[in-house]
Amino acid sequence: MENIQNTTTNIKETTICSLGFQQYLDQIKSFHGSAAPGIIIGGFMVDLAIKHLPKGILFDAISETKSCLPDAIQILTPCTIGNGWLKVLSIGRFAIILYEKTQGEGVRVYLDVDKIEPWSEIKGWFLKLKPKGQQDYKLLIEQIQNAGTSIMSLQKIRIKAHLLEKKQGKRIAICSRCKEAYPLGDGTICLACKGESPYDLYHDIESPAFFQGI
Amino acid sequence: MENIQNTTTNIKETTICSLGFQQYLDQIKSFHGSAAPGIIIGGFMVDLAIKHLPKGILFDAISETKSCLPDAIQILTPCTIGNGWLKVLSIGRFAIILYEKTQGEGVRVYLDVDKIEPWSEIKGWFLKLKPKGQQDYKLLIEQIQNAGTSIMSLQKIRIKAHLLEKKQGKRIAICSRCKEAYPLGDGTICLACKGESPYDLYHDIESPAFFQGI
Repeated sequence: MENIQNTTTNIKETTICSLGFQQYLDQIKSFHGSAAPGIIIGGFMVDLAIKHLPKGILFDAISETKSCLPDAIQILTPCTIGNGWLKVLSIGRFAIILYEKTQGEGVRVYLDVDKIEPWSEIKGWFLKLKPKGQQDYKLLIEQIQNAGTSIMSLQKIRIKAHLLEKKQGKRIAICSRCKEAYPLGDGTICLACKGESPYDLYHDIESPAFFQGI
Repeated sequence: MENIQNTTTNIKETTICSLGFQQYLDQIKSFHGSAAPGIIIGGFMVDLAIKHLPKGILFDAISETKSCLPDAIQILTPCTIGNGWLKVLSIGRFAIILYEKTQGEGVRVYLDVDKIEPWSEIKGWFLKLKPKGQQDYKLLIEQIQNAGTSIMSLQKIRIKAHLLEKKQGKRIAICSRCKEAYPLGDGTICLACKGESPYDLYHDIESPAFFQGI
């Protein structure tokens, strides 16, 4: 069995959320920029999760990592970071959760370390056992396609209540320091002016020409 | 001038990052789900920022809010949350930053409260002066299209050094509690097992049929 799994001539016919494998790769390249192993595996994870949700429900999504998986979710489901239906956590596990929006019942899919054992390149990539330059990309993608959802495990879960709370329409204030609008609930000045700004300001740009000197 | 701006019969011909206005709306609907005002304005913000970056540089992006703007960035630039070129902050200001990846020099575009004054519907929407049900959506979109980038201000900025640091390839460990892979740097067990898990586990799913009872 392991020999068959590891040959390069026996690639399964695969669909991911009704897309052909190549179609999904094309969508990845268009959106994510490159056919990274993590987002290809992510496609199988989303496919598996959706198949285990009741049909026709409205669901939200969580990615437990910032890497790759949020893009698989955004390509294959209606959930995006900007529409609020996808939350991205930084807890560093390679897992996704899809759950019914109001009650939080749902499924969690994770890449199972025990199940990747027969797949040498997947194991080497996932556990970072060898540097990127030494990975066999072609074999890795073939193993991912052949392994499909067999390297994943599935859990029935319920999202914690505080993550389900519908945000109230926040009242808006104008920050007395930066003069920009911000959620009043953040305090008397905005969070950026409280020290969370990601940048240092050089200057306002009065005209496009002024910026040529960057 | 204000009369012209506020009529509904005088809509500007507009392009957003080389897309026609309608083309951009179609892309929004496909990706984000609905043509929300915030993401339409976000398109103009991205367009303005790109025009003020030096040509041909590789840039990363920051959204200062989780709402709408991350999706405008993801639709119109190569930066996505999953490829790591887009960071989404929760500091609640309606602003985006595009910056050269290695040195952090770039531009910040924000919706300027002073400049929205002539645009009644934009002002009402942005400052949440009236409930959503009382907003005139058609007029709002027309005002957004006609206002274009005139309601925005631009700053030259430099991203703080700690946000530019290239993450080292993290070493991977197996968590002794959940048995899943996680970044070793997070400690002796993973962050989820330290209390940051977003869910309560019902049970593992052994077979698809088992899940019908959700």
